Amino acid sequence: MKACILAVGSEMLTPSKTDTNSLSITERLNQFGYDVRLKAIVGDDIDELAGILRLALTWADLVMITGGLGPTEDDVTRDAVARVLEVPLDVDEQIVDRLRERFAKRGLKMTDNNRRQAMVPRGATVLENPHGSAPGLLMKHGRTDIVLLPGPPREMSPMLDAFIREHIAPVAGARVLYRRVLKITGRPESEVDSVAFPVYESWMKQATPIATTILASLGQIELHLTASARTAADAHDALDAAVAQLHEALGPSVYSVDGRSLEQVVGELLHARGMTIAVAESCSGGLLASRLTDVPGSSRYFDRGVICYSNEAKTELVGVPESMLSEHGAVSEPVARAMAEGIAARAGTTVGVGITGIAGPGGGTPEKPVGTVFVAVSVNGDVKSRGLKLFGGRDMIKFQSAQAAMNLLRLALL
Amino acid sequence: MKACILAVGSEMLTPSKTDTNSLSITERLNQFGYDVRLKAIVGDDIDELAGILRLALTWADLVMITGGLGPTEDDVTRDAVARVLEVPLDVDEQIVDRLRERFAKRGLKMTDNNRRQAMVPRGATVLENPHGSAPGLLMKHGRTDIVLLPGPPREMSPMLDAFIREHIAPVAGARVLYRRVLKITGRPESEVDSVAFPVYESWMKQATPIATTILASLGQIELHLTASARTAADAHDALDAAVAQLHEALGPSVYSVDGRSLEQVVGELLHARGMTIAVAESCSGGLLASRLTDVPGSSRYFDRGVICYSNEAKTELVGVPESMLSEHGAVSEPVARAMAEGIAARAGTTVGVGITGIAGPGGGTPEKPVGTVFVAVSVNGDVKSRGLKLFGGRDMIKFQSAQAAMNLLRLALL
Repeated sequence: MKACILAVGSEMLTPSKTDTNSLSITERLNQFGYDVRLKAIVGDDIDELAGILRLALTWADLVMITGGLGPTEDDVTRDAVARVLEVPLDVDEQIVDRLRERFAKRGLKMTDNNRRQAMVPRGATVLENPHGSAPGLLMKHGRTDIVLLPGPPREMSPMLDAFIREHIAPVAGARVLYRRVLKITGRPESEVDSVAFPVYESWMKQATPIATTILASLGQIELHLTASARTAADAHDALDAAVAQLHEALGPSVYSVDGRSLEQVVGELLHARGMTIAVAESCSGGLLASRLTDVPGSSRYFDRGVICYSNEAKTELVGVPESMLSEHGAVSEPVARAMAEGIAARAGTTVGVGITGIAGPGGGTPEKPVGTVFVAVSVNGDVKSRGLKLFGGRDMIKFQSAQAAMNLLRLALL
Repeated sequence: MKACILAVGSEMLTPSKTDTNSLSITERLNQFGYDVRLKAIVGDDIDELAGILRLALTWADLVMITGGLGPTEDDVTRDAVARVLEVPLDVDEQIVDRLRERFAKRGLKMTDNNRRQAMVPRGATVLENPHGSAPGLLMKHGRTDIVLLPGPPREMSPMLDAFIREHIAPVAGARVLYRRVLKITGRPESEVDSVAFPVYESWMKQATPIATTILASLGQIELHLTASARTAADAHDALDAAVAQLHEALGPSVYSVDGRSLEQVVGELLHARGMTIAVAESCSGGLLASRLTDVPGSSRYFDRGVICYSNEAKTELVGVPESMLSEHGAVSEPVARAMAEGIAARAGTTVGVGITGIAGPGGGTPEKPVGTVFVAVSVNGDVKSRGLKLFGGRDMIKFQSAQAAMNLLRLALL
């Protein structure tokens, strides 16, 4: 079952606002097997709304339209729908009475433009609006249901619930959509896909089909699996099997299959092992400590962090020997290792992490360009380290440095 | 001039993600007189993308398509556009070479699926992507410009700027829209608006009208001024006058009128005064240091930071006396002050900052609930401090703590 969500309102076409109703509508529709295939935002323009509605009617089983049901001239949704369906608009006197009553209750006289809200395309079912003046409308066009809901979320949301309860749930039987997300770090997108594609390519042909999309963001790749199933149990079974297959193919580069962030995963590994951690950062500037302490309860394992930007700070705070700094330079693998060991020793923690590098935009040299970063972890005195060549702006290099250090630690703890 | 923005990617049709690229694209297009009339999000489906593109081509002067340009099977934008325009896709060997080089630089071998990124609809102009692998594309169809940009904002944004500079700005005419943003911290939204409203209420009636919107986000308020003018000079004159009036009314709570972040403003104050800074954080967990070091060139004034989560760390790293911790508790104004003084003394910097508090969700008590935070700054030995009662989740309390500490420092430096 394919759905389309149209949001009507010129304010959502400005640089500071967008449609958010569609997120909660998508969530509810997914639960009843509807797949949202198109979301669109149009202004208060009858021709443009009519154009996109005509397109949606060529393929959608359900079109949800939010907004444009108010009393003013620029509320054009009813007119656009009536035009596309080629039906007249009638005034529904019951709605007029309810509107008049609503105004009277507030000690107000109903202005004439409110009659627009009582216009109903012939054949439509009226959906009550207990939280506002504009009623919703439900129409059939061939195999497609067209539902008009008000724009304000406090009015839209209860009306959506009632519509689903009364019109969707009883006939659902249908199929349900469930999602699972695998998170991967330390490998480029094209490599992840070339490993994953042979695994997932046939999943759409299964009894419980699973759609797979791959999504690259800074320092991580996500594989989104969406199963369309007859029951929640079928969906979960199919997803469990799918996740297991991908996990086996991709190995330990998969760090999460249940939405957890890398800092949560690392935190849970530390906590489960009764370990404590201290970190020494240079180019990441405190971002690693900040991400680790974003996790509620991180004070159980996070003891301290130091940000040693200057050479003096590296010597004073974590005991990097001056001779090492002058021999190898502050941005070097031995210094990263000394930072990891030094902070663990000074803090008396099981784990120490060191990060040193050049976040840019200045400070690069031909031998050590911007993006040169070394990360090191010390776990019970056993030190592992890695050199990285990172791309991007300062904030991106900071993020990827922290990401790489956490991943090195995760792999060392597995 | 009418524009349409299409975002391609199935992940943006899920309940938890939506398109945000269109906001910054709208802002830039508005500046050159383009009116965005339709925004749509479609999945990674060639037929659906082709359908909406055909519709947009019936009325739009400019169609911007973001996403779906990557190397994988579900990146379908190039194919959909070629199908609609009825042109073949050719492999551009120059792009292949650049991709191969990009992989080699990172010590990686290019997998074959990356050749997809070098497919170019015949007749298209290639737009360079300095921040990623997928190039953008520009095509003409009748009177309509079709522009394909990558989905990740860090790649999309610079390519958009270059496209506008090279292809839009030179031929722009008509009215231009310009924006200015005032950033304010340390006062509630309602108070800011009650001061600002009498200043801006008549601006829409001016020769160069200015629309004002107020936007509250975590720990700061923004006033967005949008001038609609015949020339850039007219817009700037009107905005300069408007900004000056608001600045006078709101006083030093305005920290930026030119887009600079609070960390940039503080950094520039420190640098201008030849000062150096060291920070000691507890509940903010390194976020203050990370934000201060987000600023390029911050190594000129940022010396070091310590994150002293445990009581031992507070004593060892910044010399908070154990007696003070047991008498007042770790979350107390004297401890925040001792942290600010202690870190400045140990690092030998002009400025020290201390933050201690309860970020939650655990750790609160009736006397010191979650959100109790103390911030302190020491400037040349002169210590100022403030107690705060913050609301929100753990990350929100961390952010507001760092924000309040930077603002306390900013006001002390003015």
